[in-house]
Amino acid sequence: MKIVVYGLGLIGASVAASLKKAGHYVLGKNRSRESISYAIEHDMIDEEALSYEGADVVVLALPPRVTVRLLEEGAFPDGCIVMDICGVKSAPEKAAFSVPRRWRYVGTHPMAGKETSGIRSASDALFAGANFVMTHASQSDPAALETVRFLARDMGFGRIVECSATEHDRMIALTSQLCHVAANAYVTTPLSAGCAGFTGGSFQDMTRVAPVDERMWAELFCMNSEALCEEIVRLSRRLDEFAAAIGDRDEARICTLMREGKACYEEFFRRN
Amino acid sequence: MKIVVYGLGLIGASVAASLKKAGHYVLGKNRSRESISYAIEHDMIDEEALSYEGADVVVLALPPRVTVRLLEEGAFPDGCIVMDICGVKSAPEKAAFSVPRRWRYVGTHPMAGKETSGIRSASDALFAGANFVMTHASQSDPAALETVRFLARDMGFGRIVECSATEHDRMIALTSQLCHVAANAYVTTPLSAGCAGFTGGSFQDMTRVAPVDERMWAELFCMNSEALCEEIVRLSRRLDEFAAAIGDRDEARICTLMREGKACYEEFFRRN
Repeated sequence: MKIVVYGLGLIGASVAASLKKAGHYVLGKNRSRESISYAIEHDMIDEEALSYEGADVVVLALPPRVTVRLLEEGAFPDGCIVMDICGVKSAPEKAAFSVPRRWRYVGTHPMAGKETSGIRSASDALFAGANFVMTHASQSDPAALETVRFLARDMGFGRIVECSATEHDRMIALTSQLCHVAANAYVTTPLSAGCAGFTGGSFQDMTRVAPVDERMWAELFCMNSEALCEEIVRLSRRLDEFAAAIGDRDEARICTLMREGKACYEEFFRRN
Repeated sequence: MKIVVYGLGLIGASVAASLKKAGHYVLGKNRSRESISYAIEHDMIDEEALSYEGADVVVLALPPRVTVRLLEEGAFPDGCIVMDICGVKSAPEKAAFSVPRRWRYVGTHPMAGKETSGIRSASDALFAGANFVMTHASQSDPAALETVRFLARDMGFGRIVECSATEHDRMIALTSQLCHVAANAYVTTPLSAGCAGFTGGSFQDMTRVAPVDERMWAELFCMNSEALCEEIVRLSRRLDEFAAAIGDRDEARICTLMREGKACYEEFFRRN
């Protein structure tokens, strides 16, 4: 298939590299020439895309607001599949389906990343075994969905989950966005400057995603404001329950709270 | 040196195994015979300790409340060094120093662990490169502190941090106890049962320590109630700030909050 990947950052370049490795003809489009040269040199793309002409698939691997704007403008060839990789799915879907189109939209969310961004962190193995979420709506084209399923396998994903954009956004508020909010909130304390030597693995793991790109994440948070706020407030209230029990030195109550958490955790891993 | 390790769980058996490997003569004391047999079979101890007689060092690797009780009772040989590995340090120190003793107390906290507990998870390499905190007070014996420093190196720790019990407890509230509270609070949601397929690495890392032994942790939380509550409330209030900014879709304010977190994170890693 002829595939144009627009945006050669960590995710875009990894999409390009893994699809090229799987035998597709991959063209790259990017604002900076440097990433194009890097991608060609590192065998991530076949050549630069000068237009979308003849593309079977266009992958938009761009920041959320730019993605939404391009989907609204809708300047893609008739019949081609346009797939975005944005971390929220309702806003891009709305942009794509708000007016009738001659191209076919499929929303996706590759559940993989790194703390470092940019093409230098990209790899054709980034998605190996990871989760791939695809969203569908009544307007979705079944053949386009089927093509994207094949591409997900070609990229190396381990599991494909299909759901509505709304369900995606509700789950992702918990499984991804809240992690970034909580990790960042966690480290925001004057004590963190003095805690070298006092940390084990749990602090490192808890705070790993604290220093992500705030502009991209702020866009994502605002595009999923309602679901995310609900999760933040839930976590905050649960912490207050812990503070009350610990303040009272009420071991029985603390144990009850922790057992409730463990039960949820085990339920999660039983199904996962 | 002749060392008695009392309590052959994950930490105790790893202390025993690493000290034996370093050439010390290590005896094990444990309620269940099974762990003694396992430790002898797996070369973690030389033999069972039938008493503390002749011990240069006694390591108490027991749950917090039992540790405090044994230190209060104080039935250790004259001159011997008694070292505990409890995750809080003010309570054991107070128990040890509340009356004059003929044995010498040194509080320690090996900053290493696993999600799994028990002797079967123990290893002579558990502490390789990890942080080791030792506490001292005006009553501490300098020669005992020096001996414990050597033992920490023998166990393979990478860095030794020395401070007061109060400072330890204040830092540990942030770097360890709050992680366990936050991870547990994080997963306590009906959504966690449905989120299989929607998770990347950040959710796994964020919730890794959620299912720890609630009884031991409840004891630790209650022994450090004040410092821990302060950290829980700080995190909870910070989350509320995020919720307010995200609820208002105020990207500038979200970016400011996240940049403050990033600055703390970077300050931490600059010093660590």
